[in-house]
Amino acid sequence: MIAQHTLSFRTRGRGTTEVTREVARLVAQSGVRTGTCALFLQHTSASLILCENADPSVRADLETLFARLAPDGDPAFRHDTEGPDDMASHARAVLASNSITVPVAEGRLLLGTWQGLYLWEHRLEPQARRLVVTVMGER
Amino acid sequence: MIAQHTLSFRTRGRGTTEVTREVARLVAQSGVRTGTCALFLQHTSASLILCENADPSVRADLETLFARLAPDGDPAFRHDTEGPDDMASHARAVLASNSITVPVAEGRLLLGTWQGLYLWEHRLEPQARRLVVTVMGER
Amino acid sequence: MIAQHTLSFRTRGRGTTEVTREVARLVAQSGVRTGTCALFLQHTSASLILCENADPSVRADLETLFARLAPDGDPAFRHDTEGPDDMASHARAVLASNSITVPVAEGRLLLGTWQGLYLWEHRLEPQARRLVVTVMGER
Repeated sequence: MIAQHTLSFRTRGRGTTEVTREVARLVAQSGVRTGTCALFLQHTSASLILCENADPSVRADLETLFARLAPDGDPAFRHDTEGPDDMASHARAVLASNSITVPVAEGRLLLGTWQGLYLWEHRLEPQARRLVVTVMGER
Repeated sequence: MIAQHTLSFRTRGRGTTEVTREVARLVAQSGVRTGTCALFLQHTSASLILCENADPSVRADLETLFARLAPDGDPAFRHDTEGPDDMASHARAVLASNSITVPVAEGRLLLGTWQGLYLWEHRLEPQARRLVVTVMGER
Repeated sequence: MIAQHTLSFRTRGRGTTEVTREVARLVAQSGVRTGTCALFLQHTSASLILCENADPSVRADLETLFARLAPDGDPAFRHDTEGPDDMASHARAVLASNSITVPVAEGRLLLGTWQGLYLWEHRLEPQARRLVVTVMGER
């Protein structure tokens, strides 16, 4: 049994947007009780991550850390067609995940208590982003 | 055909614990011969990684590297509610994987010769950790 | 419905090789119209990543960045059995992904416009690499 949908988001530029609720709704509608929910972000300059969902400073600190690991406008980067955040965004997308498979049990996402799903925009400007959700399993 | 179980581990604080055997046992018990084994760690301050299973110094070196990339008590981090290893642990969990799907063939995990599955505790103190294992496929 | 195959590649040493076409062919042959394609690299010193497929300088810049994050011959590393690129390769394999699940729709990989699948060899010398492809879903 399979249900597949694409969620569309308009980000506000660099930063995180929680998408747990939207994904959970698709899982509930799918009719799958036991199985998996495969999440796939169709972009190479944004990430989909699992992150602590209580204190927003965790996501702010992640931003600080990634700015250090893969800085905008790094003189060592050659790819800057779309600006100083272009290559930094591709690099951050490789360092953080963009494909996550979450288990489904009793018709719901089997996330841990403190886990939320976040779309992490790495580009400075707002972007249209597509997240493909495939729920597979049995009733 | 689907079998889903949650494995519980008590870590000894920061460091790696091999979990290949426990996961392999669930695959064998599932009755699935061809398919996938989706592994999902229900936490945001620990990782599940594939690592070379021969020389333990590989995992020690990973610890050294991650201590450099996301150090404990980094003055740039604001989130320190649970101590100097709090944000460093969340950061390391984003840098390393916590959702891995391993193929199943002939009723077994189709790992490479040198691949082991490791639960990587990032917190300094021992923790209870839950790993959800979903085996899907055909007999 | 499940189809599982292993693709073999001979890399030319450190660098990226696009594998999108080979994977897409297996998806087309599988007969699955809606579902998932689980990709798994059976190695701990190479990665499988999603990357921008237009400008090759993106992959060159990724190499530059990873050389900074996990340098060859780092004096802090103890594991160097197979040379100065040994531990650096394991470290890079943990930082970048080696298990990706791509959705399948209308019998094809549902990749974004600019997404390509790349085998990223981290060892300096050419290697034989195996990528397991498991396509699951319904006709």
